[in-house]
Amino acid sequence: MAPLRESSGDPVLPDPPQGPLHVARARASFPWKELALFWEGEDTLRFKKAIFSALENDPLFAHPRGSRLSVEKYQELNFLRCKRVFEYDFLPVGDMLDSLPRVLALIECLGMYDWSLAVKFFLHVLTFGSAIYSSGSERHLKYLPKIFSLEIFGCFALTEVSHGSNTKGIRTTAHYDPSTQEFIIHSPDFEAAKFWVGNMGKTATHAVVFAQLYTPGGQCHGLHPFLVQIRDPKTLLPMPGVMVGDIGKKLGQNGLDNGFAMFHKVRIPRQDLLNRSGDVTPEGAYVTHVKDVGQRFSESLGSLSSGRVAIVGMSVVNLKLAVSIALRFSATRRQFGPTDKEEVPVLQYPMQQWRLLPYLAAAYALDHFFKSLFLDLGELQQGLLGKDRSVRQAELGREIHALSSAGKPLASWTAQRGIQECREACGGHGYLAMNRLGDLRDDNDPNCTYEGDNSVLLQQTSRYLLGLLARRGPGGARIESPLKTVDFLDGYADILGRRFEGSSPEDLLDSSVPLAAYEWLVCYLLRESHQKLSREKRSGKSDFEAINDCQVYHCRPLALAFLELTVVRRFHEHTHQPRVPPPLRAVLRRLSALYALWSLSQHTALLYRGGYFSGERAGKVLESAILALCAQLKDDAVALVDVIAPPDFILDSPIGRADGELYKNLWTAVLQENKVLERASWWAEFAVNKPVIGSLKPKL
Amino acid sequence: MAPLRESSGDPVLPDPPQGPLHVARARASFPWKELALFWEGEDTLRFKKAIFSALENDPLFAHPRGSRLSVEKYQELNFLRCKRVFEYDFLPVGDMLDSLPRVLALIECLGMYDWSLAVKFFLHVLTFGSAIYSSGSERHLKYLPKIFSLEIFGCFALTEVSHGSNTKGIRTTAHYDPSTQEFIIHSPDFEAAKFWVGNMGKTATHAVVFAQLYTPGGQCHGLHPFLVQIRDPKTLLPMPGVMVGDIGKKLGQNGLDNGFAMFHKVRIPRQDLLNRSGDVTPEGAYVTHVKDVGQRFSESLGSLSSGRVAIVGMSVVNLKLAVSIALRFSATRRQFGPTDKEEVPVLQYPMQQWRLLPYLAAAYALDHFFKSLFLDLGELQQGLLGKDRSVRQAELGREIHALSSAGKPLASWTAQRGIQECREACGGHGYLAMNRLGDLRDDNDPNCTYEGDNSVLLQQTSRYLLGLLARRGPGGARIESPLKTVDFLDGYADILGRRFEGSSPEDLLDSSVPLAAYEWLVCYLLRESHQKLSREKRSGKSDFEAINDCQVYHCRPLALAFLELTVVRRFHEHTHQPRVPPPLRAVLRRLSALYALWSLSQHTALLYRGGYFSGERAGKVLESAILALCAQLKDDAVALVDVIAPPDFILDSPIGRADGELYKNLWTAVLQENKVLERASWWAEFAVNKPVIGSLKPKL
Repeated sequence: MAPLRESSGDPVLPDPPQGPLHVARARASFPWKELALFWEGEDTLRFKKAIFSALENDPLFAHPRGSRLSVEKYQELNFLRCKRVFEYDFLPVGDMLDSLPRVLALIECLGMYDWSLAVKFFLHVLTFGSAIYSSGSERHLKYLPKIFSLEIFGCFALTEVSHGSNTKGIRTTAHYDPSTQEFIIHSPDFEAAKFWVGNMGKTATHAVVFAQLYTPGGQCHGLHPFLVQIRDPKTLLPMPGVMVGDIGKKLGQNGLDNGFAMFHKVRIPRQDLLNRSGDVTPEGAYVTHVKDVGQRFSESLGSLSSGRVAIVGMSVVNLKLAVSIALRFSATRRQFGPTDKEEVPVLQYPMQQWRLLPYLAAAYALDHFFKSLFLDLGELQQGLLGKDRSVRQAELGREIHALSSAGKPLASWTAQRGIQECREACGGHGYLAMNRLGDLRDDNDPNCTYEGDNSVLLQQTSRYLLGLLARRGPGGARIESPLKTVDFLDGYADILGRRFEGSSPEDLLDSSVPLAAYEWLVCYLLRESHQKLSREKRSGKSDFEAINDCQVYHCRPLALAFLELTVVRRFHEHTHQPRVPPPLRAVLRRLSALYALWSLSQHTALLYRGGYFSGERAGKVLESAILALCAQLKDDAVALVDVIAPPDFILDSPIGRADGELYKNLWTAVLQENKVLERASWWAEFAVNKPVIGSLKPKL
Repeated sequence: MAPLRESSGDPVLPDPPQGPLHVARARASFPWKELALFWEGEDTLRFKKAIFSALENDPLFAHPRGSRLSVEKYQELNFLRCKRVFEYDFLPVGDMLDSLPRVLALIECLGMYDWSLAVKFFLHVLTFGSAIYSSGSERHLKYLPKIFSLEIFGCFALTEVSHGSNTKGIRTTAHYDPSTQEFIIHSPDFEAAKFWVGNMGKTATHAVVFAQLYTPGGQCHGLHPFLVQIRDPKTLLPMPGVMVGDIGKKLGQNGLDNGFAMFHKVRIPRQDLLNRSGDVTPEGAYVTHVKDVGQRFSESLGSLSSGRVAIVGMSVVNLKLAVSIALRFSATRRQFGPTDKEEVPVLQYPMQQWRLLPYLAAAYALDHFFKSLFLDLGELQQGLLGKDRSVRQAELGREIHALSSAGKPLASWTAQRGIQECREACGGHGYLAMNRLGDLRDDNDPNCTYEGDNSVLLQQTSRYLLGLLARRGPGGARIESPLKTVDFLDGYADILGRRFEGSSPEDLLDSSVPLAAYEWLVCYLLRESHQKLSREKRSGKSDFEAINDCQVYHCRPLALAFLELTVVRRFHEHTHQPRVPPPLRAVLRRLSALYALWSLSQHTALLYRGGYFSGERAGKVLESAILALCAQLKDDAVALVDVIAPPDFILDSPIGRADGELYKNLWTAVLQENKVLERASWWAEFAVNKPVIGSLKPKL
């Protein structure tokens, strides 16, 4: 492969620095630069390098990162960095729709640097911007240039103090007053205060506020989005009637100012109703092209689904960073050995391999899944913008909704657990804030919650699958979908008759084997869920009760297993396609098999219970195959990390630097901390003001 | 039950405040005060109340807790609070040995307030103090009064930058110089700097330093503890040759000053070798009563094993606090319902019950286990102090070592996962720092690492069990142990022949059923581990390789399953004893069954694989029984929390307050934060200094 060069003559993929990791790199079975090119594509590699270099060369982005500053200082720095990103204008808004891979890369690059920054930027540009673009109409287009020039700053205000998951329960009201042609936005009490809204705490001048729309006479038309000015852009002081503030310190992402707002009869022009799904005439009549309230509701919340896909990507980025740190640490940290004299890198231990390598495989598998889902979403959005009202477009919408509703839980939980495992696998050094695993965990954590609590969201996916089965019925229509993720269900009955036939670990070293097992598993869980739900309903329970009683051991694992199957299938196909360069085939197929088997092994109990597995041997070969794949991949781990890890400046973890000078980097970083060797300012409280022991002893 | 009163006339267990949780409390099947009395005992209840009241009434302990302050400010406050605890002198040191339940209660109370405080206090008093007491001799007793009067402040310095788990690899040296009768303490390089040492960062004046002891002529006698003065108590400035500092911000426990130290040929008197296991004569001859270097090494590290037991307790406290917050939240947070008009508390959903109630049961089960293990440890330590050299004493030491080496992993991981589940179960509000779930998670996290990385530590337990099996051999001695935790293994062969016979969920509603299953499971894993290890050795692998290759799927689950069995057994016996008051029997037995079945359900795959379970029914009844127990316990959850939760001031979580005024408490707390409604100080950076979009655009 010819070396890629930038116009400056610098290589796009520079060689890693010399150092102790060199030995580990030399053992790799494949050329990492070739994998980087295959995985990212040349344009993306160049684009990422440009962004990373800009940040590294700009003192505003110098360390320390914010989480070691006070919240106030961090928020200020984060705003300044966000403004600077506008000056860089890495990807002009007009180019975004034509260059989805660059959108992905921009999210990834900013997020790898700091999620507080990336979320602040994208909430304003994408979430706020596209809510106006896609929920509003012609009359709202005037706001878009103001967004992109930072004349105004936006936020998206749906959640309230007492309502999150149940968005229908939102209680903010918007009463139309025909006498002035205004809506009156009002929070009935503090439980209806908008809450958790990113950018609202200190920055936003405008909010898309979801409120129950009432027309004169008191009829409620359900939840609608309104554009409400909350602060004066000239002063950043609140508008009259708006009580707006910061909700306080969170577990992570503290550079982002999450806020609350209460509205006291705040009047906004009629035109500021974002009227794509419903409008009010000057006289106060409600008009809509969507007849059903439920459908209108879904449409007005449409802008949320892309958020879930984005969170899949955010989770993947966090997982990539965490495994990069932990694997470089593990390849250089030595502890114990065959003799007292010799210590081996901890990555040589099967236990450490098993703790970390499946998460490395997951990072690759989920990264591919995210990118493919993002392209699917692009197709859906093209259709929405083109007002495509075809059956296929509707089916595509439902399928992507099902995929993102379980994809977000799967990705965010995998990242959550993976980061925690990485933290623990780095021992005490992983617990040191400067090594960044804590920030990754804390910044990833809300991915499990926002845009829909994971456990609640999974119901959307199981409902979709149960619906497909019900529509099919005995001798009904074929089961198929635009993205073909459910087409296998058409062979439901046959698949349920399948049995596992491997008898040695070698039989499992290709992901086709777990793929077949997953198909059986999803069919089994679908049948079990369907039967359980029917039983509960027949026993006289309401739909509400019946569905709730089916979640824990039926619908929840069904949704997760279906998503795992989809991730496994897409990664399997990606790694087995003919255009994979020959030197990369073996390593990619191993990653595919490891992710698939490791995920599947969480369901071994069901494989046995349902009869897919029988006898001791099946479970044992599954375990042996996972360990064999770990052993095969251990020498490729550092090179696989080189493909996904950002430059040292961005990764920002002394124990995870590319040279592998673990202790030198750590020690230098420790000594550079503030007042590290200085005597405590309160030394006299120890040295002079001695306590009188027991002087305050309470009577017991 | 007559109401308990203090001498002041105040009730020891006051009624909970009125509020929305009243409804949930009224549904409980048992009197919570009676359970509190049974669970804690009257003396402990009074003692805890006295401590909690003292803290609540002292402005020094007023909120906000430290994690929302800068590290520097937090460390100062934490030191002042630690000093104040000496003024309270809740439990004079002389009384500690005679009043183990009060020691437990003191750890729990201070830890419930803040682990930074508790750890700072106990590292000095117990870890440092007892290292001197139990590793030193007559000549070191003079230090003890100085510890208890805060004349000196201590730390325990074992871990180095490059060595943690492998303590034998410690590289700090202590060369004896007979010409001055001094030891020369020296760090060969920064990789041998002591690192992670609690209290060393800013406070400690003295350290117990572990170093390789060399006598003249260059002979190394292995690791020994030395008392080294590191700072001048009059100034808190470092002693000559000592480079000592703070390692920087950690993920949690930032009130504690963890530090590092490098020694440059620091000379200390010969007498400051803590000489219980080995000494050096003035002339430089090494003398010891312990012949074997390995045994001497174990003995000098003996003071570590009580640390592991303490961590079990710390983890339990964290879990108690987290489930208290999450269950009170879940009993008051309403979301969705059978109709659009009516919303039900989220605790009514089987999914929420299943996410939280097993952790409530785990908090009870592990709390009981911890207390019982602490008493066992007390027995062991009495024997050590009494120089008991009996076989039983040695066996007891080994058994407690095995229990604490797997008990710490089980408890710390259960707490880690439980707190994360609680965080997620509280949705966005759980992600708000003020609600404390983040602090609990962060402060609990090092429990997985210090005093031995969990994964590494588990090997101690599996080795103990494999050793018992080997000693027994065919027709060998009975397997039995002082605490009887392994006696069942004597029926190994018979137990392996057992099969599960339940056929309906009702058959599983008592913990005797999972107890029997656990016995089978441990025997199965023991046999599998033994066979695997033999196979690996026969294949020509070294012991080192063979044992490493058996960890993931054999020794690791063996150790965990054995500990789970022990916890289940002790909780089963505790809840089934005749002295349990009749009104408490049902609820306690349900907790016991739920913990046992839920733990066991992680091993269902093995139960099937090994033939203990067969057919679909077995797995299904296990799941049904877990859900049935959750449903039975849901109305008792709030009362069960009242028993284990500290007063509101200590719990310090707006969403977890005892009155259940979820939103009022949250809203008030939000508005009390600093500068919550204030305009950002950097407002002009938005309002005036507008960016020029694209002005810095890099060439791509």
